[in-house]
Amino acid sequence: MLGKSFQTSFFGESHGRCVGVLIEGCPPGIKVDLEELNKELEKRRPGGSIYVSPRREEDRVEILSGVFNEFTTGSPIVVIIYNKDVISFYYEKIKNTPRPSHADFVARIKYYGYNDYRGGGIFSGRITAPMVVAGYFAKKILKRFDVEVYSYIKRIGKFECNPSIEEIKKNTYKSPIRFPDLSKVEEIENYLKEIMREGDTIGGIVETIALNLPIGLGEPPIDTLDGDLAKALFMIPAVKGVEFGAGFNFSVMKGSEANDPYIIKDGKVLTLTNNSGGILGGISNGMPLIHRVVIKPASSIRKKQRTVDLEKMKETEIVVEGRHDPCIAIRAVPVVESVTSIIIADHLLRWLSWKELLEK
Amino acid sequence: MLGKSFQTSFFGESHGRCVGVLIEGCPPGIKVDLEELNKELEKRRPGGSIYVSPRREEDRVEILSGVFNEFTTGSPIVVIIYNKDVISFYYEKIKNTPRPSHADFVARIKYYGYNDYRGGGIFSGRITAPMVVAGYFAKKILKRFDVEVYSYIKRIGKFECNPSIEEIKKNTYKSPIRFPDLSKVEEIENYLKEIMREGDTIGGIVETIALNLPIGLGEPPIDTLDGDLAKALFMIPAVKGVEFGAGFNFSVMKGSEANDPYIIKDGKVLTLTNNSGGILGGISNGMPLIHRVVIKPASSIRKKQRTVDLEKMKETEIVVEGRHDPCIAIRAVPVVESVTSIIIADHLLRWLSWKELLEK
Amino acid sequence: MLGKSFQTSFFGESHGRCVGVLIEGCPPGIKVDLEELNKELEKRRPGGSIYVSPRREEDRVEILSGVFNEFTTGSPIVVIIYNKDVISFYYEKIKNTPRPSHADFVARIKYYGYNDYRGGGIFSGRITAPMVVAGYFAKKILKRFDVEVYSYIKRIGKFECNPSIEEIKKNTYKSPIRFPDLSKVEEIENYLKEIMREGDTIGGIVETIALNLPIGLGEPPIDTLDGDLAKALFMIPAVKGVEFGAGFNFSVMKGSEANDPYIIKDGKVLTLTNNSGGILGGISNGMPLIHRVVIKPASSIRKKQRTVDLEKMKETEIVVEGRHDPCIAIRAVPVVESVTSIIIADHLLRWLSWKELLEK
Amino acid sequence: MLGKSFQTSFFGESHGRCVGVLIEGCPPGIKVDLEELNKELEKRRPGGSIYVSPRREEDRVEILSGVFNEFTTGSPIVVIIYNKDVISFYYEKIKNTPRPSHADFVARIKYYGYNDYRGGGIFSGRITAPMVVAGYFAKKILKRFDVEVYSYIKRIGKFECNPSIEEIKKNTYKSPIRFPDLSKVEEIENYLKEIMREGDTIGGIVETIALNLPIGLGEPPIDTLDGDLAKALFMIPAVKGVEFGAGFNFSVMKGSEANDPYIIKDGKVLTLTNNSGGILGGISNGMPLIHRVVIKPASSIRKKQRTVDLEKMKETEIVVEGRHDPCIAIRAVPVVESVTSIIIADHLLRWLSWKELLEK
Repeated sequence: MLGKSFQTSFFGESHGRCVGVLIEGCPPGIKVDLEELNKELEKRRPGGSIYVSPRREEDRVEILSGVFNEFTTGSPIVVIIYNKDVISFYYEKIKNTPRPSHADFVARIKYYGYNDYRGGGIFSGRITAPMVVAGYFAKKILKRFDVEVYSYIKRIGKFECNPSIEEIKKNTYKSPIRFPDLSKVEEIENYLKEIMREGDTIGGIVETIALNLPIGLGEPPIDTLDGDLAKALFMIPAVKGVEFGAGFNFSVMKGSEANDPYIIKDGKVLTLTNNSGGILGGISNGMPLIHRVVIKPASSIRKKQRTVDLEKMKETEIVVEGRHDPCIAIRAVPVVESVTSIIIADHLLRWLSWKELLEK
Repeated sequence: MLGKSFQTSFFGESHGRCVGVLIEGCPPGIKVDLEELNKELEKRRPGGSIYVSPRREEDRVEILSGVFNEFTTGSPIVVIIYNKDVISFYYEKIKNTPRPSHADFVARIKYYGYNDYRGGGIFSGRITAPMVVAGYFAKKILKRFDVEVYSYIKRIGKFECNPSIEEIKKNTYKSPIRFPDLSKVEEIENYLKEIMREGDTIGGIVETIALNLPIGLGEPPIDTLDGDLAKALFMIPAVKGVEFGAGFNFSVMKGSEANDPYIIKDGKVLTLTNNSGGILGGISNGMPLIHRVVIKPASSIRKKQRTVDLEKMKETEIVVEGRHDPCIAIRAVPVVESVTSIIIADHLLRWLSWKELLEK
Repeated sequence: MLGKSFQTSFFGESHGRCVGVLIEGCPPGIKVDLEELNKELEKRRPGGSIYVSPRREEDRVEILSGVFNEFTTGSPIVVIIYNKDVISFYYEKIKNTPRPSHADFVARIKYYGYNDYRGGGIFSGRITAPMVVAGYFAKKILKRFDVEVYSYIKRIGKFECNPSIEEIKKNTYKSPIRFPDLSKVEEIENYLKEIMREGDTIGGIVETIALNLPIGLGEPPIDTLDGDLAKALFMIPAVKGVEFGAGFNFSVMKGSEANDPYIIKDGKVLTLTNNSGGILGGISNGMPLIHRVVIKPASSIRKKQRTVDLEKMKETEIVVEGRHDPCIAIRAVPVVESVTSIIIADHLLRWLSWKELLEK
Repeated sequence: MLGKSFQTSFFGESHGRCVGVLIEGCPPGIKVDLEELNKELEKRRPGGSIYVSPRREEDRVEILSGVFNEFTTGSPIVVIIYNKDVISFYYEKIKNTPRPSHADFVARIKYYGYNDYRGGGIFSGRITAPMVVAGYFAKKILKRFDVEVYSYIKRIGKFECNPSIEEIKKNTYKSPIRFPDLSKVEEIENYLKEIMREGDTIGGIVETIALNLPIGLGEPPIDTLDGDLAKALFMIPAVKGVEFGAGFNFSVMKGSEANDPYIIKDGKVLTLTNNSGGILGGISNGMPLIHRVVIKPASSIRKKQRTVDLEKMKETEIVVEGRHDPCIAIRAVPVVESVTSIIIADHLLRWLSWKELLEK
């Protein structure tokens, strides 16, 4: 279970009956519109594009509990997304030969061989779909406080962009690769096609900007806002790093370059720069919250790789068949946005109780 | 509270009575040696060196509960470290003029002005001392499974090293700056003296390597080993990013470069490379666990900075007096090592219950 | 979420799509047999009997995740029980006139009118079905340690029994009213028919005996075994009290009467009496764990009662239509047994990690 | 750790350095007055009376963190109560011969012999002192919502009272035995003296009434208000049962007798009777919350008892020396009141966040 007030639990396997989410602590009175929710889920499927996995997930969503007459009831919400009938025999074949850098091997050991290995089981990217569902509810809570969260592709391989917030809002979902600098999209698409032809994949970075957070979210010393975000973001398969504001670049900065001076603008205390990425001491400071996650290249590649046969305990080789996304960072964009929203909503709910107590 | 089995809570303020830690769930029968514990705490104080804060913390440690006849009892452990008498009047002066990139401002808002602002209160680096105390207990648990954790300075400003594990073990604490490439230490020391003369500070990166973890630590989909480590590491003031294995470098890597092929060596399944940093799918894979955290430059600098007077609500300037560490990443080394040990110990304890159940 | 190691979350509404449970932390390798599981669920439906609610719940169970090839995988388990199509219009009628001692009124206020009031929503006895499902998994864990849990009707109104453990095992489910003293069953059945004719209901007491617990379950000072059991038992609708061993009778006992002397039998330390009910200091002592819960009479009665019209804010009267159980304690028997098993399993898993660490 | 928003952890041993509490999540701005706090602690020591343990606990309280300038800061609070120098040699003597119905035996097994057995260690009544400290902070939160909590002795052996709320408020602490029916105090005192002369002890019942709770505290299906109260009350040594409203008496009641009809009074919806004890469906209904806990007779008696020598593994006898309370229920009164306040405060804080969200 993730969170303390807006609590989420994820379940389901890639080739099982469904994937889904349980949400505890979601306030009553939130309007739930299945069409809207499906649109959120659509964002995970850059369908028209040629680069993405051919498995056409027609996400059939069902709300099992916690919503009545189109509003949340305040009771536990369960939403599932059915898996379509899938052919799993292929996975039987590789059951004993773990794919390099996939979770096959660790899952087999950890779960004493009982894990559902078909399609990667719980380690499949498929489990990010219910994260988007939970994000849908979280965003509705955020909306009441005008908090907005935007994620986009900051980097794919050598290609990077530095868009304004307006460009992010306007262009991210116009671009099949979620890259808001539209002038580079064609070039990157060609690069990705080349990667695919090679049977290879490429990594990327997703940046997220959250606007209008109240000052004071975060509960140090332990439940910091950045720490809680980081933990949650590592739920997303292939995330290997998280940084806030200037992030790893801080390692070569001096304090005089890194510090964000305070100014007053329109009667509000702001900072002139935002190297801190909106968080100080684990607490939101009212400036835009900015973080970046790195998504490693998908480990499923068509190139021949060394691996071992775990039954015979000898070395062998593997070629992972099938067509796969050349860059899974693209699909991760709405997931990162959703996970970020989930954590902010959780902290917002907790922050409200002190606010009510101290300001009433 | 941090953790599920080995649970820690930190408390105390920089200029209050003490800082301390409560540990719940620590198993009985762990030998506690105050001298050993003090040696661990010494690591936070690179005393002979000229660069570090002149506040000489003679950490007087007192165990309040949970230890009897020099062994842990299995009941809640509380250990405190008294603060020496400190002069706090200076902080009164800056009460209304928040130091840029310090937590002064957010603390004031979040806690409705009731926070103990003296010496940074709970946001002081002082609260990392009890993290080292908790790390002491955690390491004792790890030792029973031969798990070892080593942190060191990977980077200070432009200086970086790439030491072998033997160099890390041998040299880190020989070097006053925790930089195991001893050939560069003098040059870096001169650089840090220059930084101090300027009244400035510099950032850095701490790398950590944990050896001999069993395969199977981590509880996806939510309580991943990397996620739990990341959350905990953000408790350390000034941490702004965490990455595992190849980390952010994955963004420019292809799958064929990034994947770690499986091999067999001495009858064990290993990987040829370790870009994954010992974690796949949120679970330890038996290879060395590797992570890096970036520590921003200390925000307390003697250079004049822009800030605001919160009482008069007008812009002003501030010079943060006193002598301060030129690079707080140095002091963070044993803290990162301790926090990493705490999380691994927590996962290890949980992992044991399935092991006992399934292998008995 | 309930529990720390074997964690359960319940969801669903009486007249919604389904009721269900999410289980996190269930170890892999537990055999799951749907027929067995359905038999457990059958225990909630003393079907042949005339006293129980006519709503014939043909519990169609579906496992959504966490089970693969008939074994638990170690990943989150979700099991749902579909609700049959139910006629809810009746509940519209009483939407504004809360049934005395039902949760109608508090639910309306707490959830700001958004709660699913049909059939009592989450407050219906229907939500105890997934508790039995979770109990099924818990009992499988208990079985590996020979722990057995038995609940039965100790009292219905003025009728009480004092059976031996053998009678409990043999007779409880032979008796349609779960009353193991079979000689009194006919008399009680007649009494219950009379209660039904009056349109009334009656309370009862369920006693539970758990055998073969290892010594040492329970984590004081906070997570005591009795405290965790008590909290969980209050999830069951209509439970209004819990007592262990001699329970409330302790209030009139002297220490010399209440204390359980230690003896040695077959090389084991036992107690001569078991007033403590198997728990001392919040920890299991190896003797049979004994607790009793009181179940209030069902609040749905056909007799005319005073209530208020919440829309018009004036007093009025209500007659709750439909046929209802004369004594809901009867249906509660397998639920109490399941909830007790869930908590013991949770503590057992945690207890295992210290055991493995200290005895290896 | 207990609670989700107002979180408490208790630590310390009877003959160790101190006992204490850590509180996380306590809002800032609560006035802390050490004299007031000491008065609360005084309630645990019915000093003038002859019946209570001669160990005169001059509770020296020290606040270690979380309070600044006499107000809570919003950061973790730690308060300790030093133990006076105590003579522990006596306990060495009985180390291997567990006192019947004390936790000696289970503690030895659970903690593998590492527990601090002196004075009962963590199982001593001494650990209830920090519960009163936490209750002090909780009551301050309750006060802002006019919530009041009163506990008193309902029963000692055969003596029972049925006081009005005014008598409870006025007389409980006037009476050295916390029995608000002052007319019976002398008789009970004589009875207790007789019990003492016999070297025996007697059980009792503590009733608690909490007034002015808002409607809506409690978070079913799992975190019910009654369940959370029950769990917390079992932290108090010697508690063996908890009941709400009519409690175990419900077992002989009919629905028509048990149900509380709704009425309207002064524009508010109330119930005519309060058999429910202020809780329906796990949620407060605005009526006085009423619960009773049974406290077993102290197990330390001077009468000779059978026990075993755990070293020699043979049966033997024990006489527990020293003067002890004839009825520990008396000392438990302020503890029960405090623990009840802690749980209500925790639920109140969570309730506030929905309130702020839905009513703003």
